[in-house]
Amino acid sequence: MKPAPIDYDTVREMLRTATPDRILRFIGKSHPADIALLFKGLEPIEVRQLFDILFSSRRADKTLKELPPELLPDILELIDDEKVGRLIVRADPDDAVTFIDSLPEERRERVLALLDPERQAAVREIINYPEGTVGRIMTTEFMALSPDTTAQGAIDKIRERGELETFFYLYVVDEAGVPIRNLVIAPPNRKLSEMMIADPVKANVFTDQEEAARLVSRYELLALPIVDEAGRLEGIITVDDVIDIINEESTEDMYKMAGLAEEDRVFTPISRSVKMRLPWTILNLLTASLAASVVGLFEGTLHEIIALVTFMPVIAGVGGNGATQTATVIIRAIALGELEFASAWKAIVKQVSVNICIALAAGGMIALAAVLWKGSPFLGLVLAVAMIFNLGLMAGFAGAVIPLLLKALKFDPALGSGIIVTGLTDAFGFLSFLGLATYFRRYLT
Amino acid sequence: MKPAPIDYDTVREMLRTATPDRILRFIGKSHPADIALLFKGLEPIEVRQLFDILFSSRRADKTLKELPPELLPDILELIDDEKVGRLIVRADPDDAVTFIDSLPEERRERVLALLDPERQAAVREIINYPEGTVGRIMTTEFMALSPDTTAQGAIDKIRERGELETFFYLYVVDEAGVPIRNLVIAPPNRKLSEMMIADPVKANVFTDQEEAARLVSRYELLALPIVDEAGRLEGIITVDDVIDIINEESTEDMYKMAGLAEEDRVFTPISRSVKMRLPWTILNLLTASLAASVVGLFEGTLHEIIALVTFMPVIAGVGGNGATQTATVIIRAIALGELEFASAWKAIVKQVSVNICIALAAGGMIALAAVLWKGSPFLGLVLAVAMIFNLGLMAGFAGAVIPLLLKALKFDPALGSGIIVTGLTDAFGFLSFLGLATYFRRYLT
Repeated sequence: MKPAPIDYDTVREMLRTATPDRILRFIGKSHPADIALLFKGLEPIEVRQLFDILFSSRRADKTLKELPPELLPDILELIDDEKVGRLIVRADPDDAVTFIDSLPEERRERVLALLDPERQAAVREIINYPEGTVGRIMTTEFMALSPDTTAQGAIDKIRERGELETFFYLYVVDEAGVPIRNLVIAPPNRKLSEMMIADPVKANVFTDQEEAARLVSRYELLALPIVDEAGRLEGIITVDDVIDIINEESTEDMYKMAGLAEEDRVFTPISRSVKMRLPWTILNLLTASLAASVVGLFEGTLHEIIALVTFMPVIAGVGGNGATQTATVIIRAIALGELEFASAWKAIVKQVSVNICIALAAGGMIALAAVLWKGSPFLGLVLAVAMIFNLGLMAGFAGAVIPLLLKALKFDPALGSGIIVTGLTDAFGFLSFLGLATYFRRYLT
Repeated sequence: MKPAPIDYDTVREMLRTATPDRILRFIGKSHPADIALLFKGLEPIEVRQLFDILFSSRRADKTLKELPPELLPDILELIDDEKVGRLIVRADPDDAVTFIDSLPEERRERVLALLDPERQAAVREIINYPEGTVGRIMTTEFMALSPDTTAQGAIDKIRERGELETFFYLYVVDEAGVPIRNLVIAPPNRKLSEMMIADPVKANVFTDQEEAARLVSRYELLALPIVDEAGRLEGIITVDDVIDIINEESTEDMYKMAGLAEEDRVFTPISRSVKMRLPWTILNLLTASLAASVVGLFEGTLHEIIALVTFMPVIAGVGGNGATQTATVIIRAIALGELEFASAWKAIVKQVSVNICIALAAGGMIALAAVLWKGSPFLGLVLAVAMIFNLGLMAGFAGAVIPLLLKALKFDPALGSGIIVTGLTDAFGFLSFLGLATYFRRYLT
């Protein structure tokens, strides 16, 4: 069903022994996305060879843009400035920006300086848009015609341009769109103004790319026109960009929740992964220290009733997971556009209610376990109440509020939320469990 | 930029006072995706009214299919069998299946029995495909022509069919595809056989929908042909289906990691959320009990050196988060098709290495804290070694292996992985920390 993958070992063998032409014939029919995968495990010298072969047949740009983003910097590092410059000239403007973005700061300027002034200005315009906005990823190659153009006139223009691949709609200057497919059945003399979708859904160059993806997904569009502040058409975002955005944003949500940087992929070099995870580990040490200092407050009680210590991981662990569940539901709802601030209060109340119900059940079970195992109904009661406080109130509340709070503060709602909510439930779990135990200590000994 | 949302309060007011015609004029120009959102907060009687208005203007099917999946069952419950039957007849086959799926088992048969035999057979054929396969969600409305058809002949056929909306490619019987856009610039007499994409990427009816989405995304297709076991074209998956699949699968991954059922959305009724989360909470109680029983083994040591108890949450918390990070990286890589079993070993080694480096740093910090705070270098050493065991070895290993193991066992790689890996790191963290402390107890007192 799916195209057979290119045999990796054969390519390595050929890179050692065969002529560039033979190699090109071997891999030439494959889709760039499959060719790109070859770069994954090659030695530097082989990377350069393969790049040169693709470059000389003008396929390097189409291939490299398919690479997982974490691999691109290492590959571009092996290619000299002059070739990277020509790669950028040949690439579509949005891919050119991807390449520029993968260069280290100081090299970026050096490579940009190699471009002709016009191209340089075009690339600079795009990289001036903040990261995460549609301006930065839109393609500026689109077709805009006047409303008086006839269907046949439009077809002639398309023929002239030759390439049709990235066109889904014709844009009628700054106002409306005509799906190209519709030209197929239009009488030759019909004017675009009679066929156009007036006032189509559009986005601004500074719109968040996630928001643009939501529009394309909700209204089932093939492309979204992007306009500047004055309402002038500046570019388009196509549905395949949207798929990339959605994948990227989903990764980002899962990653941010766990405290991971987006570039920290499965085969990112170890040293880079370590550098990116370390700050999160430090945050985690801090939230864990909060829990530790709560426990420290109760060393006296614990020393007196050492059996309490056994149940600490249960109160903390179940609370932490309950909070993670709640945070996941909220983060996902925000990402899919199902939850706005207007209904936030309703969502918080609902999540806390769910958690209280579950805490009643879990509290009952842990109490029963305490009675059967330690023979102490008072310990059971303390555990059940601590479970309701921690899993019911704290986990439900923190899990729902933290992502909403992060969003209100203009952070990503997922940012470190897993670490924060488990830190909070650890600390609050120990506080309620050991606090109650201290208060009722005479019944527990 | 984005279409103004329909004012919710106005609609509720109109449902009380205005005629159906006026209401229809008010909401009629909006996109079905926006109309669908109105259903979210209506009372049962208003739901029925709004449904009837949409139904009488043949817009109910297009609107209801836009609803978030967790809301559909409650709305269909309010509509009588006969109308649901007619809704299903009018809907596209793939939407019809969505509606059928949202009915409770016993009602499903009752409603199916109302359909004419031909339609009934068509729906039954689709719902016989297992959930999660493309057969179940493909649209069976596509155009297949013989290779001898000319470009003009194809255009005539398209005109005849009238509706063009879901067509991106013409399929040349069972073999190849012609992008409809290409008809625009083709000379009228050119045959489809000269324009077609021979041997296009395709999928089988039993292909996992996630795999189909990966193909569309990787090869930047607008539609993917779906064939049966004999290679006959049975349907297509379009790019807007793919966006839905990707969103759904991303939700699923995040949800499964935290131990959440997919239907457990932000506004799912409380009782249903509780019922779905409870089994996971019980699993969580069990994994937490494992950690608890490990702690129970060391009550003697803890009683003797109560200061140890303060550091327990740090070893467990940081280990748990490290394992969650690793599991997230692996789960995401599997989901995006970046990690296969062939490179699993390499991925495990890499993740463990990263975790060991981080554990060295975190162990150093916690040791320093122990020295400064408790004045005990031995305690510091024990903590550092326990951190390396738990965060370095266990978190890295379990975080990488559990998702791969789940996949090898044909489960979803994310399934409960958050709960499992944090349970393991809790237990192993206590075992290594308290085990080491017990062994070296004479240096610690």
